Amino acid sequence: MTTEMQVSDEQRHREEELVRLVLASFDGTPEPRLKELMQGVVRHLHAFLRDVRLTEREWLQAIEFLTAVGHITDDRRQEFILLSDTLGASMQTIAINNEAYGDATEATVFGPFFVEDSPHVELGGDIAGSASGQPCWVEGTVTDIDGRPIAGARIEVWEADEDGFYDVQYTDDRVAGRAHLFSDDDGSFRFWAVTPTPYPIPHDGPVGAMLAATGRSPMRASHLHFMVGAEGCRTLVTHIFVRGDELLASDSVFGVKDSLVKDFVEQPAGTPTPDGRELGDASWSRVAFDIVLAPAEV
Amino acid sequence: MTTEMQVSDEQRHREEELVRLVLASFDGTPEPRLKELMQGVVRHLHAFLRDVRLTEREWLQAIEFLTAVGHITDDRRQEFILLSDTLGASMQTIAINNEAYGDATEATVFGPFFVEDSPHVELGGDIAGSASGQPCWVEGTVTDIDGRPIAGARIEVWEADEDGFYDVQYTDDRVAGRAHLFSDDDGSFRFWAVTPTPYPIPHDGPVGAMLAATGRSPMRASHLHFMVGAEGCRTLVTHIFVRGDELLASDSVFGVKDSLVKDFVEQPAGTPTPDGRELGDASWSRVAFDIVLAPAEV
Ligand SMILES: [Fe+2]
Ligand SMILES: [Fe+2]
Repeated sequence: MTTEMQVSDEQRHREEELVRLVLASFDGTPEPRLKELMQGVVRHLHAFLRDVRLTEREWLQAIEFLTAVGHITDDRRQEFILLSDTLGASMQTIAINNEAYGDATEATVFGPFFVEDSPHVELGGDIAGSASGQPCWVEGTVTDIDGRPIAGARIEVWEADEDGFYDVQYTDDRVAGRAHLFSDDDGSFRFWAVTPTPYPIPHDGPVGAMLAATGRSPMRASHLHFMVGAEGCRTLVTHIFVRGDELLASDSVFGVKDSLVKDFVEQPAGTPTPDGRELGDASWSRVAFDIVLAPAEV
Repeated sequence: MTTEMQVSDEQRHREEELVRLVLASFDGTPEPRLKELMQGVVRHLHAFLRDVRLTEREWLQAIEFLTAVGHITDDRRQEFILLSDTLGASMQTIAINNEAYGDATEATVFGPFFVEDSPHVELGGDIAGSASGQPCWVEGTVTDIDGRPIAGARIEVWEADEDGFYDVQYTDDRVAGRAHLFSDDDGSFRFWAVTPTPYPIPHDGPVGAMLAATGRSPMRASHLHFMVGAEGCRTLVTHIFVRGDELLASDSVFGVKDSLVKDFVEQPAGTPTPDGRELGDASWSRVAFDIVLAPAEV
């Protein structure tokens, strides 16, 4: 995939000398990890420039793109995170920091829509609140990698409504589609939510323009966010996805893992609910998600 | 220099699969060069993340750093260019796009202080205007790579005053320390300037903080900027540097090339000047710079 380079020995020598000079400029960095990071940036940045033979015009376009990303970013809009997400860098960082460990549930992107201090619901409660959508019964267990149930694990869940909006995107201050609950003594949990639907990442800025120019969709595959923590365990940040969603293969932030795709089983209107909740003539869905937490120190 | 990676096969597989997925997402890019650039970004960005095993905390620090770079950038301050300069990326792009060609004079960074529509001076005129500093006589020739003189080459020169400021940094609208002139029929040129002195790049922002954290100086080695253009020739953007300047080895933007370091020969007060100019009891300096332009299509 690399551009064929046909450069003279003298030219190659000049380029390599420059890389050496820039690397050496960081030799005096007091903090060893910062030195390693900066020299890593230099090594890979220069390899990129030389690999693609970046033109001066392209360099200027890159400067202008980053400037636009910087200027749209504010307290409510983080376009650099969107850029990281859409280049798969967020997901790769998560992969690196949540190393595969036995059968531990895989992690995925955190996303920008988590909010601290979500309401608490009891087991079997409803996290949807005023968020619209088809009711969805979610149940499962939290265990360690040896299959031992974990009681009292804190389970944060959050999701968009059927129109694709999180409560923080509402024009009022409603809290909806988010809550936390704790696993039962046998590690089990259950709650009502709404069946996840797809939504686009914000795409009216430079990252959206990049997606459009490269023929990519801003849509995220339908998902329900989880963050699960328990003493002695590595905190898990993940989603579950809806099997059959046609966006699974083109999720704009590369968050989908096969192991996180679940059967959201449609239940025709009138099907009795697990907890006897009356849904009238509404259909509903149900999904099972068994969560396995890795130990903390891995 | 690479961090020792000790990851399982499963972990490596997950990371490599993610890279493949992100690369494939750009396969549909209509414009081939954009596809090549984006896939190049992805390949080298992910290699960096995996190489240094970036932590989630470091990822967030990087996001915050870029956000700060974006927020200080405005019409007068371009912190992304400073970042590119201090990582050697600007200089590497220039190296790539000004390929070594015979004895053609080497290029270096453009810098942020060039201004269009500089005043014209005659051969032997003074580009300093009201810029303070020791007078410096600059002379040389413009030739092609076969040594043939180039008449009428447009020579733009610009420099800081002895306090390290360009005119665009003055609080008033004075134009000083910049002009253009044209080479003579025999390719020769000559003008008065001021002897270059060192100055720092703007270092009160995030790039300055990066330099401080890594033990680097923001100082640029003393230099005089040139941009030289003639029909049929590759436009040359370069500097000349002052031999003996102790900053030559640590120029903050990596602009120094051995071939661009020149003898600025000190002339005691009273030494007759080449054009009979009276300098009273002021010392002056003189430097020779012979410019060789590559052909346009290389
Ligand atoms: Fe989400
Ligand atoms: Fe300069």
